[in-house]
Amino acid sequence: MTKISARMFIGIQGKEYISFGSGQPDLAPPKEVYEILPNYNDFKYGPVAGLPKLRELLSEEYPNSNSENFIITNGASEAIDLCLRVLSKKILNKKKVLITKPYYYSYPHLIKAAGFEVEYLETKDGKIIYEDFQKKIKESSIIIINSPSNPSGTIEEIETLKKIENYCEENKIKILSDEVYKDLIYERENYIIKGNNVITVNSFSKTYAMCGFRVGYAWSLDQELINDMIELKSHTSMNTNILGQEMALAAKKVPKEFIDKQLEIWIERRDLIFNGLKELGFKVIKPQGAFYILIDVEDPEKFVLDLFEKYKVITYPGTWFGAEKKVRLSYALDTEKIIEGLNRIRKYLNEN
Amino acid sequence: MTKISARMFIGIQGKEYISFGSGQPDLAPPKEVYEILPNYNDFKYGPVAGLPKLRELLSEEYPNSNSENFIITNGASEAIDLCLRVLSKKILNKKKVLITKPYYYSYPHLIKAAGFEVEYLETKDGKIIYEDFQKKIKESSIIIINSPSNPSGTIEEIETLKKIENYCEENKIKILSDEVYKDLIYERENYIIKGNNVITVNSFSKTYAMCGFRVGYAWSLDQELINDMIELKSHTSMNTNILGQEMALAAKKVPKEFIDKQLEIWIERRDLIFNGLKELGFKVIKPQGAFYILIDVEDPEKFVLDLFEKYKVITYPGTWFGAEKKVRLSYALDTEKIIEGLNRIRKYLNEN
Repeated sequence: MTKISARMFIGIQGKEYISFGSGQPDLAPPKEVYEILPNYNDFKYGPVAGLPKLRELLSEEYPNSNSENFIITNGASEAIDLCLRVLSKKILNKKKVLITKPYYYSYPHLIKAAGFEVEYLETKDGKIIYEDFQKKIKESSIIIINSPSNPSGTIEEIETLKKIENYCEENKIKILSDEVYKDLIYERENYIIKGNNVITVNSFSKTYAMCGFRVGYAWSLDQELINDMIELKSHTSMNTNILGQEMALAAKKVPKEFIDKQLEIWIERRDLIFNGLKELGFKVIKPQGAFYILIDVEDPEKFVLDLFEKYKVITYPGTWFGAEKKVRLSYALDTEKIIEGLNRIRKYLNEN
Repeated sequence: MTKISARMFIGIQGKEYISFGSGQPDLAPPKEVYEILPNYNDFKYGPVAGLPKLRELLSEEYPNSNSENFIITNGASEAIDLCLRVLSKKILNKKKVLITKPYYYSYPHLIKAAGFEVEYLETKDGKIIYEDFQKKIKESSIIIINSPSNPSGTIEEIETLKKIENYCEENKIKILSDEVYKDLIYERENYIIKGNNVITVNSFSKTYAMCGFRVGYAWSLDQELINDMIELKSHTSMNTNILGQEMALAAKKVPKEFIDKQLEIWIERRDLIFNGLKELGFKVIKPQGAFYILIDVEDPEKFVLDLFEKYKVITYPGTWFGAEKKVRLSYALDTEKIIEGLNRIRKYLNEN
């Protein structure tokens, strides 16, 4: 295990540091989110399923849906947790959950906490290898798909997603599709994975830079599953913060230009860091979405520690995400800082 | 099982109904809670443990404490859930959790969801019978104490609490003390249960009428337990809504007169409903805290349904709370409505 812990980087906010660490947008949410605050005066419990207006608006985005197919949660995290806990009570055999490697660092924890086992799917250039899926899904009941991916920034091929869709529909395998970066795809429109066994989780955190407000949701045509999640949430946390939900609703009503403009900024940053790292000699795969990039590093632990201690640059070791011999850089920071960070990495490479 | 479901009462907000159902204050939170809103502009993740300023302020209220002993959660519900989930991974034998009967309706669900079994403690006039505790605790690893109690409105004797404290300290039994109604005690000051195996959960929901904002917390001198809860929460929901926490902080800073004034109102209502129900011939125990009262009813199902359908009065069957042959009334409504509600119950009794 690595000596590097996330706690090392907490509270390192001094401007002398350049952080490629944090997995959250640095750009502010739409101003409309704050405009509802001065006149707000509610205080009572809301429905555990979430604000009806918000669920109705979301249902317009998903095929064959109505507001009942949604549950609003404390971020996508709680949606995944509730979903796995509910499924674990129903699925008594084949307790394996398939995730790609590399993976979002919480998946193994959530899977085990719910009483499942983790099975890893190998990837090629960050994408699912369908043959490996076919082999490993036989022993599994659920697959978690995270496209665009944190930490690799890759998106799955639509062809692969359709094959998985079909396989899972035929074999009654649950697909938990974590689409929190769906509005940050640089190459194509998002492909919503569909089917009666699909649960999609999403969030207002990345699209609208609302991480701290913790508003996410799950969508499924498996109404029983959504209802069971609502029932469980009625005991484990009740309604998601009522004001957070109103703020999410305000964000959701903002014209799509907001998202388009954000995307332009992300693409500029992506190009900057991708070209910069390539120029420095790193083996990198061009991110197609989200705001992360993985680089190949012989000794990630030394790399991360040296950069942090001697060059005041924060990066995360790939081992946190099941990516050996890799380091993750987030490019959720402005171009000036990205350039300065790249310069410091160049200096480190030259001096070592 | 009863035919009555909580869903029946949802959305019944018309003024023709008198609701003794809902378990939340009807009075508004302190105005200071809303005064921070117009200038608010944060949006990033906060520490998973919670806002440091809020934890520091809370630590002044608890003996031998510092801010590290706290975790801020999505209401007391999440605190209980996290605590039981963490303990379930550590406690592999004696998987029973002791709760009093009647109980807060979520306890059995949370206990089972975490992988424990429920063991019920009989009560006398709503209070723990120490001899029954001594007998049943031998097979249990945890006891949940809820004083003041939802649904009975009773408080435990300090003498009993001290005996339980000693027994649990000596025998390394965990006490999960749910003190969400601690500021709504009419008879005495709250007695904080202490010890190295104690976890106290609390909330801003009842004291400051902030149910919808879902801000609660857990306190323990068992630092490993708090740290494990923070670790689990970092995967299951991350920080509690950052703005909700700021609002809780604003509430916490309000002079104690706010609480004293609320308490006067609750006492007035308590006296009104207690005397009114007694006058109607019900066997009732005078509530000493919270805002619930249980009445003895021969056929609770018929009583609740008749009152709802024919007299437009909402009450909850005791079976939801493990109280057979009883009905729960909440008196979180103004005196005029309490009087009207009592009149309708009188009418029902006269006509049936």
